[in-house]
Amino acid sequence: MSKPIYILNGPNLNLLGQREPEVYGHATLDDVRDRAAIWAAQFSLDIEFRQSNTEGEIVDWIQEARSSACGLVINAGAYTHTSVAILDALLATDIPCVEVHLSNVFQREEFRHHSYLSSACIGVICGFGVKSYELAVEALAERLGAAAS
Amino acid sequence: MSKPIYILNGPNLNLLGQREPEVYGHATLDDVRDRAAIWAAQFSLDIEFRQSNTEGEIVDWIQEARSSACGLVINAGAYTHTSVAILDALLATDIPCVEVHLSNVFQREEFRHHSYLSSACIGVICGFGVKSYELAVEALAERLGAAAS
Amino acid sequence: MSKPIYILNGPNLNLLGQREPEVYGHATLDDVRDRAAIWAAQFSLDIEFRQSNTEGEIVDWIQEARSSACGLVINAGAYTHTSVAILDALLATDIPCVEVHLSNVFQREEFRHHSYLSSACIGVICGFGVKSYELAVEALAERLGAAAS
Amino acid sequence: MSKPIYILNGPNLNLLGQREPEVYGHATLDDVRDRAAIWAAQFSLDIEFRQSNTEGEIVDWIQEARSSACGLVINAGAYTHTSVAILDALLATDIPCVEVHLSNVFQREEFRHHSYLSSACIGVICGFGVKSYELAVEALAERLGAAAS
Amino acid sequence: MSKPIYILNGPNLNLLGQREPEVYGHATLDDVRDRAAIWAAQFSLDIEFRQSNTEGEIVDWIQEARSSACGLVINAGAYTHTSVAILDALLATDIPCVEVHLSNVFQREEFRHHSYLSSACIGVICGFGVKSYELAVEALAERLGAAAS
Amino acid sequence: MSKPIYILNGPNLNLLGQREPEVYGHATLDDVRDRAAIWAAQFSLDIEFRQSNTEGEIVDWIQEARSSACGLVINAGAYTHTSVAILDALLATDIPCVEVHLSNVFQREEFRHHSYLSSACIGVICGFGVKSYELAVEALAERLGAAAS
Amino acid sequence: MSKPIYILNGPNLNLLGQREPEVYGHATLDDVRDRAAIWAAQFSLDIEFRQSNTEGEIVDWIQEARSSACGLVINAGAYTHTSVAILDALLATDIPCVEVHLSNVFQREEFRHHSYLSSACIGVICGFGVKSYELAVEALAERLGAAAS
Amino acid sequence: MSKPIYILNGPNLNLLGQREPEVYGHATLDDVRDRAAIWAAQFSLDIEFRQSNTEGEIVDWIQEARSSACGLVINAGAYTHTSVAILDALLATDIPCVEVHLSNVFQREEFRHHSYLSSACIGVICGFGVKSYELAVEALAERLGAAAS
Amino acid sequence: MSKPIYILNGPNLNLLGQREPEVYGHATLDDVRDRAAIWAAQFSLDIEFRQSNTEGEIVDWIQEARSSACGLVINAGAYTHTSVAILDALLATDIPCVEVHLSNVFQREEFRHHSYLSSACIGVICGFGVKSYELAVEALAERLGAAAS
Amino acid sequence: MSKPIYILNGPNLNLLGQREPEVYGHATLDDVRDRAAIWAAQFSLDIEFRQSNTEGEIVDWIQEARSSACGLVINAGAYTHTSVAILDALLATDIPCVEVHLSNVFQREEFRHHSYLSSACIGVICGFGVKSYELAVEALAERLGAAAS
Amino acid sequence: MSKPIYILNGPNLNLLGQREPEVYGHATLDDVRDRAAIWAAQFSLDIEFRQSNTEGEIVDWIQEARSSACGLVINAGAYTHTSVAILDALLATDIPCVEVHLSNVFQREEFRHHSYLSSACIGVICGFGVKSYELAVEALAERLGAAAS
Amino acid sequence: MSKPIYILNGPNLNLLGQREPEVYGHATLDDVRDRAAIWAAQFSLDIEFRQSNTEGEIVDWIQEARSSACGLVINAGAYTHTSVAILDALLATDIPCVEVHLSNVFQREEFRHHSYLSSACIGVICGFGVKSYELAVEALAERLGAAAS
Repeated sequence: MSKPIYILNGPNLNLLGQREPEVYGHATLDDVRDRAAIWAAQFSLDIEFRQSNTEGEIVDWIQEARSSACGLVINAGAYTHTSVAILDALLATDIPCVEVHLSNVFQREEFRHHSYLSSACIGVICGFGVKSYELAVEALAERLGAAAS
Repeated sequence: MSKPIYILNGPNLNLLGQREPEVYGHATLDDVRDRAAIWAAQFSLDIEFRQSNTEGEIVDWIQEARSSACGLVINAGAYTHTSVAILDALLATDIPCVEVHLSNVFQREEFRHHSYLSSACIGVICGFGVKSYELAVEALAERLGAAAS
Repeated sequence: MSKPIYILNGPNLNLLGQREPEVYGHATLDDVRDRAAIWAAQFSLDIEFRQSNTEGEIVDWIQEARSSACGLVINAGAYTHTSVAILDALLATDIPCVEVHLSNVFQREEFRHHSYLSSACIGVICGFGVKSYELAVEALAERLGAAAS
Repeated sequence: MSKPIYILNGPNLNLLGQREPEVYGHATLDDVRDRAAIWAAQFSLDIEFRQSNTEGEIVDWIQEARSSACGLVINAGAYTHTSVAILDALLATDIPCVEVHLSNVFQREEFRHHSYLSSACIGVICGFGVKSYELAVEALAERLGAAAS
Repeated sequence: MSKPIYILNGPNLNLLGQREPEVYGHATLDDVRDRAAIWAAQFSLDIEFRQSNTEGEIVDWIQEARSSACGLVINAGAYTHTSVAILDALLATDIPCVEVHLSNVFQREEFRHHSYLSSACIGVICGFGVKSYELAVEALAERLGAAAS
Repeated sequence: MSKPIYILNGPNLNLLGQREPEVYGHATLDDVRDRAAIWAAQFSLDIEFRQSNTEGEIVDWIQEARSSACGLVINAGAYTHTSVAILDALLATDIPCVEVHLSNVFQREEFRHHSYLSSACIGVICGFGVKSYELAVEALAERLGAAAS
Repeated sequence: MSKPIYILNGPNLNLLGQREPEVYGHATLDDVRDRAAIWAAQFSLDIEFRQSNTEGEIVDWIQEARSSACGLVINAGAYTHTSVAILDALLATDIPCVEVHLSNVFQREEFRHHSYLSSACIGVICGFGVKSYELAVEALAERLGAAAS
Repeated sequence: MSKPIYILNGPNLNLLGQREPEVYGHATLDDVRDRAAIWAAQFSLDIEFRQSNTEGEIVDWIQEARSSACGLVINAGAYTHTSVAILDALLATDIPCVEVHLSNVFQREEFRHHSYLSSACIGVICGFGVKSYELAVEALAERLGAAAS
Repeated sequence: MSKPIYILNGPNLNLLGQREPEVYGHATLDDVRDRAAIWAAQFSLDIEFRQSNTEGEIVDWIQEARSSACGLVINAGAYTHTSVAILDALLATDIPCVEVHLSNVFQREEFRHHSYLSSACIGVICGFGVKSYELAVEALAERLGAAAS
Repeated sequence: MSKPIYILNGPNLNLLGQREPEVYGHATLDDVRDRAAIWAAQFSLDIEFRQSNTEGEIVDWIQEARSSACGLVINAGAYTHTSVAILDALLATDIPCVEVHLSNVFQREEFRHHSYLSSACIGVICGFGVKSYELAVEALAERLGAAAS
Repeated sequence: MSKPIYILNGPNLNLLGQREPEVYGHATLDDVRDRAAIWAAQFSLDIEFRQSNTEGEIVDWIQEARSSACGLVINAGAYTHTSVAILDALLATDIPCVEVHLSNVFQREEFRHHSYLSSACIGVICGFGVKSYELAVEALAERLGAAAS
Repeated sequence: MSKPIYILNGPNLNLLGQREPEVYGHATLDDVRDRAAIWAAQFSLDIEFRQSNTEGEIVDWIQEARSSACGLVINAGAYTHTSVAILDALLATDIPCVEVHLSNVFQREEFRHHSYLSSACIGVICGFGVKSYELAVEALAERLGAAAS
């Protein structure tokens, strides 16, 4: 399968490793990318890994993924809870999408318990730190029929 | 009247014709622009037709319209339901504005029934597909006193 | 097309022109009927224009429209916000229906923001005064494939 | 003052005296009319006293009162809690209106605590049985400047 | 027992058999009347079967039933969910009343789950199509002590 | 009848005539007292007229009224909407109580629509300015069987 | 038809006849079983009648009914209002199910007005005491095409 | 590591493969156990796999797991949304727990969007069918420091 | 008085002393039983002390207590907040019941502030640890007229 | 221990014994004081017993108790449900506080189910009449380590 | 400008410096007064600084301020969230008022996020400890046109 | 102190002085910058003053401020009420932040009363026009220990 998995990250995730390391750990977003790439490689899958603080840019990338990606992993950060625009972009894609979160959002403030995006994804994984991304790649791989190498 | 009508389109409307054609039809956003332009021409009106996935850019354009446009048609897509920023931009304009939607939003999910923008517009038109835009142009034309040619 | 468009008006619309003219304008309901008839004639369509203060009578007329009309324009006035009976009558018709309002209901009291009827109509038009009716007729004409003469 | 006060009564008030006399007393609606007429006569005022079970008919009568009455007393019964149509009719009248209830509605079910009509009246009187009507007439008389004979 | 059971039907039930037959079946309201009459005859009971689209007329009939009927079956249709006036009429009757619905209202929209009338009836039966009426007659017969013939 | 009617006034009513005269009129609280006394005298009733800004003092007075008054008129001002303590004091009295308001509270902010006190009173009168007090005295007089002189 | 109707009863129904007889009558649950059996026999139907206080056991029985019963009558008592597990068991059955209640639940506390189970049943019958069960059996019989003997 | 992972399944999961296979697939609960066991073996972990329809039994097993298990995977089915008792049992365990669901609960009814259990788990995985269990085992393995063999 | 007081404990209370000792203390449930027994003995009362994780079993025991106990102390743990079945069992008993909690539930999560059971008990005691049970026994003893020895 | 327990009583509790004796019993507030003093004496504790109808005075006394009392029993009456000021005073004290009520507030109106004070107390006791005070004193005594004499 | 600024403090603020010093700091209310006086002196303004635990007394002082003060700073403490009486007093003043809080109320319990008073003030300042008062004085000074000396 | 204070302004604030001058005054955003700079200079502080209509850009700037600024003043305009992304950016900074608004948001529409940002700031200042910025700078200066020159 030649198209990559897009792994899209929302606002403030670029601060990973610097912000509240006791909560989010010391891994940086680059570390996440590297671990996800290695995991994807097990299934002979490539990844395209990006981050943006701007809602509209994430919408752009999801639209791009419609033709350029075989699957999508999205950690929309704060936009998870507020963005109907990202929901609509996901609804307009036919490729499978998995929602991930580093932390267990259900242990945080009430307003973080609601996700606009979950209903447009095949599934949700949260709470396992960087491992959440690996599990999401693995779930996508199974859905895509990619064999673990 | 030398200033054009600004017709501004929000997130994911650039996918028109590709996304759920059974719902939104096969017309593309270019088709919408063309039909709106022809309709406006009946009233000797020009149009300036744009689309953006970014909330802030739509705010920029509405601010620009304050001095550059004679009227405004806005289909803010998903931002209709979440953007106070666009509401505030509309509140700061003196030119007449019409809110349009391709689909009948009241037949969709509950959260799409609320629009932050309606109260800042002179009126709302939804559910008629591309025809919604023609009707909006026509309503503006009447308000502006433009005569059908 | 030999069947007319039914244009049904709900409670207190018979006071049009007398009640709060600064809000609703000086046009009377007869004026609305005349303008709507002229507009419909452009599309070779006739209209049947009625008003009632009684919910049950409006239900009767919608039922009648099932076989006697080719389309329906409804301004249910106050019943818009309270009548499930009118909703059910609309749900039982196969002809296309358009909901109209003279004023922009979204600029008024909170309880006027909810319409029981919108989900049973193909679309909604509000805020343009008498022009709302012309636009509704035009939208129906397009839906019915009636050509502007 | 030659125009009468309209005293309009809503659904089921025609059962007065027969229904739950331990709550509503043994006076019939005719008794209420007679006492109200006598009270009004003190202020040289006539009354026009009516009852209907149909919302639309009450709307008709309020519209009629716009030109035929000098004031309005309304006990809309159950429609108090559900009718926006009656509210709109009241909003369209310029003559002073008083809302009355025989029972103290605030001691009854929660849904009877809300009245759509109160905000369109100059005042509200409830809980005093037939006396509520006399007080309402008296309040109107003061507002109208009618002198007690 | 010489007084009949009143069976009262609310708005749009006159369309039965024509409207969404896949939901409501092909039986017409006349068929319902005939089946209910036959069923009642088993218990030596007569029926008086009526339909109206007007809330006030239903109130009138319930008031009439106070002295003319031995029991009441009511399918208030859409007014079930909005009419305090019908509730009050039922509260003012001493004869037993049963609320029926053709469809299972709890499988439909949220706003159809609430009935103003249930608390004023001895019981509720819904979801069994025309059979709902037969069961209601049977339940009334037991309450009235009428013996099945 | 030798015991007086207590007429108790809550916070800020001492400012009457100075505060928003376009709303509350130019009458002072002394004027209200004088008019209420004259009205009561018609029924051979005395009044005891007081005002306090302190919730506890109003509770004290209502307790005092249990043995010293024949009836109670209360305009609790802002405490109407917040005081369970005053409600409890009223619940502990056996003498009849009437709730009054100068303005029509239902035309004001949402939080002024709810009264803790209404359910503990025989009735409510609001919206008639100083006349509200006269009507309340009159309603009490009828309840007490006091004859107009 | 050789498979029986399962009639399942939830918590505290074993106390029938002992608990609040003025509400629930003097019939015991054995009496209910006997009357239901006789009624079913009219339609050549057998019944399997059980009661449990444990939610999980009721789930077990509904699962068993999937292959062992031709229809289901369920009075889940208090679990009606709290059990998603029983809802899911019902959703997993293909045989027709009827929800019954002895009392009119809509005349009781607010939290008893909501049933998790209604949407998974073909219909609901409540308020007729033991007769509710007979009516439910009869409704099932009609659905199953069983002829009254 | 000699203690197994407990994998606990709630009500109706024993019907897996029989119930709505288009939603839940054709795998049975035994298949799930087998796949989970194989996956766990990769990390040299054993599993103890159980199902119960009874809330109290699930509480018992979680209490047992406190000393007998190294980790916990829980798919509490319907009890996810209603059981504070299971939440409390989880809060009383020190071993890591993962919440799983076969389906994407966020695409189902509103009441299935809330889980009492999520806040007591390290993370949540839903929507991937049987794969959800494998991912949960893998997440636990990482947390426990078990090496993939 | 020969019948004992039943003291019933709900889910997870068997973990007392092991679970969060900083919150619940080091006393075990056996310690609670012993202290309660000693306290009851002061009033010449016996106790029957039980614990279950299963809602249905607690319902069984409350039913048993109707004839076997002179009073009831219940700490339903998590079922306090979710069980209408236990409420109904309590409503069906004539013996006095006291609700107890070890911790002050009002200092915990919002959903623990509501108890279905309180309205069916003569009183509630919470927050005093094991002492809560002693106070409950003492309150029952007074109600039962048992004299402290 | 030389400092007394403060026992503070809120509005209308001075009417105890006169108000609704069928609910509150015939004991007066003096009787409560006497019984509480005797009970406290068992633990060699003195009491300081006060009542006020004024929220501010109760705040004053709680502030005074910070240095003058060893513990606090508070029955804030109606202020329980409305006073953040009393909550704040309690939060500012370090001495243990117990909230008591004579009646079982959970059997009364909905607005009496919420207490602002509970979270600032070590525990709550309600429903046992005068006995509630004895139990509160006893609970405080245990907390203070005072030995029963 | 000869009239002082009134600085009014609500319940429990007299405990400042003693209560939770880690939150509120070690400054006492006297310290606050001194710092505020010095700051006001910069603008040639005097202050009148008071504190009360009684809602009614604060109402009295605000009324007094209408004629005796040039401006008002109010920290109503707990009454901020519950007092409509203080709101009404503020609404009746024409002098400018500023609401202050020592702590950032938006970081505290939900019920402290709502202020009845904010809408009656020209602005709000919270979270800066004693500095909040200085800023409030400065804001008033600007509004009053007082020049910094 | 060599790092500046960042003063960040959200959507539509660039229109200041042009938009609703009767509300916002005639000062432009440049005027605000100039006055803030002068005020900061009193404390030997520099400012970096920016405005953007795009949520993501404001997030970028707050992230930049983490290392480049000594403090932050934020007027997020409409994003105050909708942006969790900006909240998260603020939560990730260690430098002190103050939220400001030109107008008193509590006098405006209900949805403007809630700020996502307040809980992440040390304090809030609103309602004083341009002066709000000066006060915010002054509050930051105190917090930072900067001495007024």
